[in-house]
Amino acid sequence: MLVAAREIEALLGEDSVSYDEDDIENHGFSDWSSVNSTSRAVAVVYPRSTDDVVKAAEICHKLRVPIVPYGAGSSVEGNFSSPYSGIVVDVTRMDNILSFHPQDMDVVVQPGVNWVDLNKKMEKEKLFLPLDPSPTATVGGMVSTNCSGTNAFRYGTMKDWVTNVTVVLADGRVIKTRQRPRKTSAGYNLTSLFVGAEGTLGIITEITLKLAVVPNETSVAVVTFPTIFSAASAASRIIRSGIQLAAMELMDEVQMRIVNRHGSEQVRKMNWDETPSLFLKFSSHSKEGIQSDIRGVKELIEQDDNTKFVFAKTKDEEANLWAARKEALWTMTSIKPEGHAIWSTDVAVPISRLAEIIEVSKKDGDKLGVFTSIVGHVGDGNFHEALMYDPKDPAQSAAVKHAVQMMITRALEMEGTVSGEHAIGMGKKQCLMDELGLSTIEVMKQLKTAVDPRWIMNPGKIFDLPKGSAVHA
Amino acid sequence: MLVAAREIEALLGEDSVSYDEDDIENHGFSDWSSVNSTSRAVAVVYPRSTDDVVKAAEICHKLRVPIVPYGAGSSVEGNFSSPYSGIVVDVTRMDNILSFHPQDMDVVVQPGVNWVDLNKKMEKEKLFLPLDPSPTATVGGMVSTNCSGTNAFRYGTMKDWVTNVTVVLADGRVIKTRQRPRKTSAGYNLTSLFVGAEGTLGIITEITLKLAVVPNETSVAVVTFPTIFSAASAASRIIRSGIQLAAMELMDEVQMRIVNRHGSEQVRKMNWDETPSLFLKFSSHSKEGIQSDIRGVKELIEQDDNTKFVFAKTKDEEANLWAARKEALWTMTSIKPEGHAIWSTDVAVPISRLAEIIEVSKKDGDKLGVFTSIVGHVGDGNFHEALMYDPKDPAQSAAVKHAVQMMITRALEMEGTVSGEHAIGMGKKQCLMDELGLSTIEVMKQLKTAVDPRWIMNPGKIFDLPKGSAVHA
Repeated sequence: MLVAAREIEALLGEDSVSYDEDDIENHGFSDWSSVNSTSRAVAVVYPRSTDDVVKAAEICHKLRVPIVPYGAGSSVEGNFSSPYSGIVVDVTRMDNILSFHPQDMDVVVQPGVNWVDLNKKMEKEKLFLPLDPSPTATVGGMVSTNCSGTNAFRYGTMKDWVTNVTVVLADGRVIKTRQRPRKTSAGYNLTSLFVGAEGTLGIITEITLKLAVVPNETSVAVVTFPTIFSAASAASRIIRSGIQLAAMELMDEVQMRIVNRHGSEQVRKMNWDETPSLFLKFSSHSKEGIQSDIRGVKELIEQDDNTKFVFAKTKDEEANLWAARKEALWTMTSIKPEGHAIWSTDVAVPISRLAEIIEVSKKDGDKLGVFTSIVGHVGDGNFHEALMYDPKDPAQSAAVKHAVQMMITRALEMEGTVSGEHAIGMGKKQCLMDELGLSTIEVMKQLKTAVDPRWIMNPGKIFDLPKGSAVHA
Repeated sequence: MLVAAREIEALLGEDSVSYDEDDIENHGFSDWSSVNSTSRAVAVVYPRSTDDVVKAAEICHKLRVPIVPYGAGSSVEGNFSSPYSGIVVDVTRMDNILSFHPQDMDVVVQPGVNWVDLNKKMEKEKLFLPLDPSPTATVGGMVSTNCSGTNAFRYGTMKDWVTNVTVVLADGRVIKTRQRPRKTSAGYNLTSLFVGAEGTLGIITEITLKLAVVPNETSVAVVTFPTIFSAASAASRIIRSGIQLAAMELMDEVQMRIVNRHGSEQVRKMNWDETPSLFLKFSSHSKEGIQSDIRGVKELIEQDDNTKFVFAKTKDEEANLWAARKEALWTMTSIKPEGHAIWSTDVAVPISRLAEIIEVSKKDGDKLGVFTSIVGHVGDGNFHEALMYDPKDPAQSAAVKHAVQMMITRALEMEGTVSGEHAIGMGKKQCLMDELGLSTIEVMKQLKTAVDPRWIMNPGKIFDLPKGSAVHA
């Protein structure tokens, strides 16, 4: 494998390949991952162009060396682990905006572009990419995991915002999946095949993204409920009403307690009720539009007793209200005792089953004596469970593993999915098999083999390698 | 091939296979198609279940006989022609709604379900499938061509409404692409691969569809413009404003003249201005929401001189206003002289180029002396050109062919697509090659070969068969 790295170095230049141990470690291990492989890559390659990636792919293909694409490293299911060693291709130097077409409401970017930066640059044209995964995430990784976040209720997931991708295939061939119109029915939808493929079908080197118009008006409200079940039920009523919120998020009483105690100063001083809460974001092109949405939602929520509606009256208050949701994950990390770990995972179910699965999953966590907290993108039937535990305590580790498995099994029984927005990586391969069954996975593998016959692209992710696979192991 | 039909008949029963010449002709030729093959199938099979389709596929696979899936026969690019003969699988007897989940806002249907019927049945739950292709279309065909229609501006295209599909592959294997949550990032997006694949990858036998909430309030306005360019430019301003209309359609002065003279009685008596017109549909959950949208759009349009805004004041007027748009295609057919043909085709371009391509395409048609009319889904950068001509007149036929080719070439120069919503079929194979290039098409063919190694599924559509293909020809 080192031979491959040296060959790549010869073509791309010395500063494009790193053999540094720390560098390799940082590209192969993550504290945030539900799973990490013990094996590491032999080098990290930093391409600057599609052409650099082509050269790397050609060499790795020839020598049957695994390629593991890497963006920001913010994924959580071992998506960028190197279980078969190989070479990491870190695309973060490919961070140019290639062309911005405000009138067409699209932008062409390299995969290393960070979405927060991108949105800042497009602000003055009142356009944005309406996803919000980890603020560190880069577009290539967002595409490859089909990410989403709090905006998905209104705007959908990453797959809905990718017009085309340019991909370097395993053998170095370059294809562009589509042209630049927002609508097409011309040929197979290869774009959607590469979105969410986690780099197992090729390395994405250019992406055309659709953009949304930044709404003129926004508003935020937080509604507290006596039980998580009543909160999730209210969410269902809102969804069925057809009122288009910008976001609808759920935090349980545990999360509310944590932000009260460990949030940032302006969040702590809001003195939150420590009870299940819905965070609602409204948006519209006009004040009247927002007011009518708010009125509609209030009527729906007031069908419940014992709810309380807190409204942002100023832009500052709006920011403070939403900050509590934003800080949820961060505050959990801040209270994590030294040496403890957080297992954060998600599932999604048909909307009507959400209240039930959330309630039961929380009870399971409590029963097992594991610290469990729930944050949910309830508008999509998608929620995250975070479990905190001491990985050195075998009983606790087993309990956490069991709780996660129970949540997943339950989601499947409800015709749900084992991953709402984190993809499969190494962590959920068996779950995916449980979800879709052998024949569907076999078709995925046939497609994989068709474009990557040597299985060098991010091997060991989504599904296992076929027996007797040629990959250099 | 007849052997295959007889074997299928033995398994499915006599009334499931038709050898009737008229029946075969109706399943292999369409007046509406831009192209038809001269060859016909040997039989039409009418399966009643996934299992029936499996049996037919197994036999055809074994005997290397082409299978051509058929729904309503409303596609226009020769999508259901039988250029290599074979057996037509007509799914219209598979027309059951299998399960309806109003609380999850989804429905599971067989491919032969007609979308208008489906929407009627779901009316009382205030849910609908927000596509509107030909009123005769069935869901299987809508999925296979990735159809859309006037609602796409707000609701997207078919691909955005399919949660999963159950597919019978060429060799009779059955897979289900996904479970039933609205959001997932679990494994390859096989659903999107089958959507728009025109039955070349397998026969879809079950579809889970997402549903939208029927808006409480709707309204319609028609705005007239001095030129088609100013109309398309106003459309661009509306898109960039972020105001979410339900639909935005463009009709040129030719179309307006036709509906004035040949529309239904209630449409004719509206006495339309014969000038380029935008048809706007507003929708919202509340009256205030609609009013604020209307105000916003009015302000944007009034930046132009010489525009006129006609508003529906009653539900009847609303229906009459929209009827003009609805009758566009129908009225054109009604004035078609005996023996004349209509070539109706569409392209889509990045939004900013729409005004230009429409204007130039119209001029081209006029220059060539061909009757040309344009109807556009301008919210998506997608428009239809309909050309009327006498197919027995070689000069006229050549002129029409040339005009269509020029429109397509121009769309490609603008980074557009050769098919916005009619797919490729037999009619646009070369165009697709021009759009995407050889390497991208090669990848599509590799994927096709992976799941249908004998190329029996709807061969000769989207792309040509590989040389030396094993298909029974």
